[in-house]
Amino acid sequence: MAEFGKVVIFGVGLIGGSFALALKSARAVEEVVGFGRRPASLREAQDLGIIDRAGINPAHELEDADLVLVATPVGQMPDLFAQIAPYIGPHTVVTDGGSTKCDVTQAAYAAFGDRVAQFVPSHPIAGAENSGAAASRSDLYQGRKVVVTPLPENQDEALDRVKRAWSLCGADIYELSPEQHDRVFAAVSHLPHVLAFALVKDLAERPDAALFFDFAASGFRDFTRIAGSHPEMWRDICLANRTALLEEIEAYQAQLNDIKAALARHNGEHLEQSFNVAREARRAWGHRQK
Amino acid sequence: MAEFGKVVIFGVGLIGGSFALALKSARAVEEVVGFGRRPASLREAQDLGIIDRAGINPAHELEDADLVLVATPVGQMPDLFAQIAPYIGPHTVVTDGGSTKCDVTQAAYAAFGDRVAQFVPSHPIAGAENSGAAASRSDLYQGRKVVVTPLPENQDEALDRVKRAWSLCGADIYELSPEQHDRVFAAVSHLPHVLAFALVKDLAERPDAALFFDFAASGFRDFTRIAGSHPEMWRDICLANRTALLEEIEAYQAQLNDIKAALARHNGEHLEQSFNVAREARRAWGHRQK
Repeated sequence: MAEFGKVVIFGVGLIGGSFALALKSARAVEEVVGFGRRPASLREAQDLGIIDRAGINPAHELEDADLVLVATPVGQMPDLFAQIAPYIGPHTVVTDGGSTKCDVTQAAYAAFGDRVAQFVPSHPIAGAENSGAAASRSDLYQGRKVVVTPLPENQDEALDRVKRAWSLCGADIYELSPEQHDRVFAAVSHLPHVLAFALVKDLAERPDAALFFDFAASGFRDFTRIAGSHPEMWRDICLANRTALLEEIEAYQAQLNDIKAALARHNGEHLEQSFNVAREARRAWGHRQK
Repeated sequence: MAEFGKVVIFGVGLIGGSFALALKSARAVEEVVGFGRRPASLREAQDLGIIDRAGINPAHELEDADLVLVATPVGQMPDLFAQIAPYIGPHTVVTDGGSTKCDVTQAAYAAFGDRVAQFVPSHPIAGAENSGAAASRSDLYQGRKVVVTPLPENQDEALDRVKRAWSLCGADIYELSPEQHDRVFAAVSHLPHVLAFALVKDLAERPDAALFFDFAASGFRDFTRIAGSHPEMWRDICLANRTALLEEIEAYQAQLNDIKAALARHNGEHLEQSFNVAREARRAWGHRQK
C-alpha cells in the first residue's frame, strides 16, 4: 500500500505537477486529483499522467484526502484557503508551495481557524524559467531545498507528513520561522528579481535602447536572466512580501549610495575594498555550491 | 610573408595573450614581443608560445613595430602611454584593449601629442572570469564584438590596420564615438557589476550572513556571477568611466525608487506593468543572441 492515499493538488503547474510526478515516481501515492482554473490545463495534466483525474467540486474531494498541496500563485491563496477550509477531513493535512510565508500563514489562520493545526506552510526552492503542467518533472525537487515554516499549532504528525512528502520528492528539508523565511528570501530572491527588472526596464525605455542592447554581453545576460520571469507571479510575490522587501530595498539603496559616494569622491580604495568584500563572499558561496 | 611584422604587447594577460595567440594562429604575425610588470608572467607567456620573447627596454622595441597593443588595466595606461610615446616609429600604430574610451583617449592626446594620429582606441568585448596569460585562448575573440572609437586625427591606414588585426582574431568590428561607447558600457556592463557587488556586500556584512547565503539559489547565482570579478580591475574601470557611470547609477536609482513607491502604495498594476516591460525586452534580446 502506498504511503499516501489521496493527494489533492490545487494549481497543477510546474510546482504542483512536479510534486505529483515525484510522488508517483516514488510509488508513494494511490491517487492524485487536480484542480485548476483552466480545464484545458487539467486535461493536459491528465494526459501527461501527472494527475489521475481532474476534480469537479472540492466539497467532494477533501474529506478523505491525506494531503492537499496548494500550488497556486500566492495572491490566490487567501480565497482558495477559504474555499477549501470547510471541507477538509479530520485527518487531512494541507500545505502550500508559496514563495512567501508570513502572508500565507496569516491567510491560513483566517481561513482554517481552529483547524489551522492541519495547515503546514512550506516553500520548495525550485523555480525554473518554464512554467505550466507540461514543464513538470519528477526530478524537479531532487537535491533541492524545501523550507517548512511550522505553526505553533502544528502537531508532529501533520508536520512529519508534509516533511515526508517533500523528502519522497528528493528534497532536503529545512525549518525556519515564517518571519525568518520571508526576510531571507526577500534578500536572496525577491530583491535580485526587482533589481534585474529595474535594470532592463531602465534600458528598454530609452529612445536609443537598441544601441545599448546591441553591446550587452555575457555579464548582462546572466545578471538579467531573472528579468525574464513571470510578471504576474512576481507582482504577487512582491506584494505578498512587501514589508520585508521594502526593508531589503532600503538596505540595498544604502549600499548603492555608499558606492556612488565613493565614486563621486574618486575614492578608489573604498571602491576596491567594497568590491573585494563582495568577491570574497561570492567566491566562498560558489565553492560551497559545488 | 605575414601581414604584420613585429607586434608588441604591453600586459600579456587574457586580453593581450589571446590577441597574440589569435594572430599567430592566423599566421598573421612574424614576431610578438611582450612587456609586463611581472617577469614570471612573461616567462610563462613565452613558455606557452604566446610571445616569442620578453622585451627588456621599450626604447629598443617600438621603432620597428607595426602594431602595439596596450592591454594593461586602464588605470596604468596614462603612464604607459607617456613611457612609450617617445619611441614609436613613424610607421607604428598603437591601440589598446581598455574597457573605457574617453579617459584612454584623453591620456593618448596627452602622451602622444602631435603623433596621436598613430593611436586608434579599441575595446574587445570579451571578458572572462579567468585572467592571466595562462587563460589566453586563440579563439577568445571569435565571433565577439570589438568596438573601435576612432579619433578625428586617425588616417584610414592606421584605422584599417587596427580593424584588420581584430578581424584576423575573428572579431566583428563596430565603430562608436568614445562618448557613445562609454555611455553604452556604463549602462550594460559597469552598472550591472556595481549592482551585483552591492548586493553581495549587503548580505556579506550581516551578522547572520550564513543564513542568507544558505538559501540563495540559481537566480542569485546568475545575478551575482559578475560580483566574482576582479576588484582592482573594476575599481579602475569605475573610476575611468566615473561620469557616465554616475549618470547611470542615478537613472537606475530613479527606476528602483519608482518600483519601491509602487510597492509601498500596494500598486500591483504598476509593478506588473514595469516587470512586463522588462520581461518583454529581456526576452526579445535573448532571442536575438541565439
